Amino acid sequence: MENLDKIFSSLNKLSYGLYIVASSSDGKKNGQLVNTVFQLTPNPPRIAICLNKENLTHEIINKSGFFSVSILEEETPLPFIGLFGFKSGRDIDKFEKTSHKMEGDCPIVTENTLSYLNVKVVSKMDADSHTLFMGQVINGEVLKEGNRLTYDFYQKNKKGRTHKNATTFNKITEANK
Amino acid sequence: MENLDKIFSSLNKLSYGLYIVASSSDGKKNGQLVNTVFQLTPNPPRIAICLNKENLTHEIINKSGFFSVSILEEETPLPFIGLFGFKSGRDIDKFEKTSHKMEGDCPIVTENTLSYLNVKVVSKMDADSHTLFMGQVINGEVLKEGNRLTYDFYQKNKKGRTHKNATTFNKITEANK
Repeated sequence: MENLDKIFSSLNKLSYGLYIVASSSDGKKNGQLVNTVFQLTPNPPRIAICLNKENLTHEIINKSGFFSVSILEEETPLPFIGLFGFKSGRDIDKFEKTSHKMEGDCPIVTENTLSYLNVKVVSKMDADSHTLFMGQVINGEVLKEGNRLTYDFYQKNKKGRTHKNATTFNKITEANK
Repeated sequence: MENLDKIFSSLNKLSYGLYIVASSSDGKKNGQLVNTVFQLTPNPPRIAICLNKENLTHEIINKSGFFSVSILEEETPLPFIGLFGFKSGRDIDKFEKTSHKMEGDCPIVTENTLSYLNVKVVSKMDADSHTLFMGQVINGEVLKEGNRLTYDFYQKNKKGRTHKNATTFNKITEANK
């Protein structure tokens, strides 16, 4: 597409938060940084998330049928973002040194977390490189008050990078950093 | 659900932007305020939006198979938000006094707009009261630089209300305003 640069520049104006999505199957816990989480319906409370098919968390959620979302605070340190955003659970145990709790088999990251959601997958939609999971929220709680971490803040104030598997990865923008 | 209050409080920490989604069919143009827009894949560039089935824009996109997204600037005045967010195109012509352009049959709001996306629907997912539309971005452009309007900013600084048909409408939160 000839106009791909212009499309990417326009897409870069969309607003996102930053979240940890986590799950477990066969005793293996994993989680990853995600910017694409939104509420679909209030009643019943349902949300959508979008994950790259190559990611371990995608594989685990496909098996388990559940996941948690931890909504991160603005003060979240870069090493924590690096751990969940740029390392693979295939190489390391991301939960070894991360504060979390379990609700049944579902791991929930509580570190740097304003609030969390415990979600059961009810439907999936294929999007080629990614899958959109629709889930019903079965539990959730606010853990602390504070400012939420936005993707915009992360990119501007923390000069944050974007993983090649992210929904918003854009070679052109990334090359300009 | 007993824990619904806690779930809503937790869901309220998610981050969103604010957008006008517009379309046309049978010569009738309409658009509405939407907070749920996210990128699904970079290649091809695809996005998802979520709309209430009762809304006229939902009906029109179902017929036309295309829509635009205008990404709003922080300075967007409340009367403009009121026009697209709290009035129905069944009663008034929202485009009569709104600056816009056409790309083929697709109307694109250019007023208070940082950038826009022209999107072709490729798939749909039913979510009871709402539909999630997955679309391929076929064109897009940045119209001006500036700060994007976030849902958080709208609620805190403009004390903005939420329409009863919104994905994030929450009787508890709304009652506290």
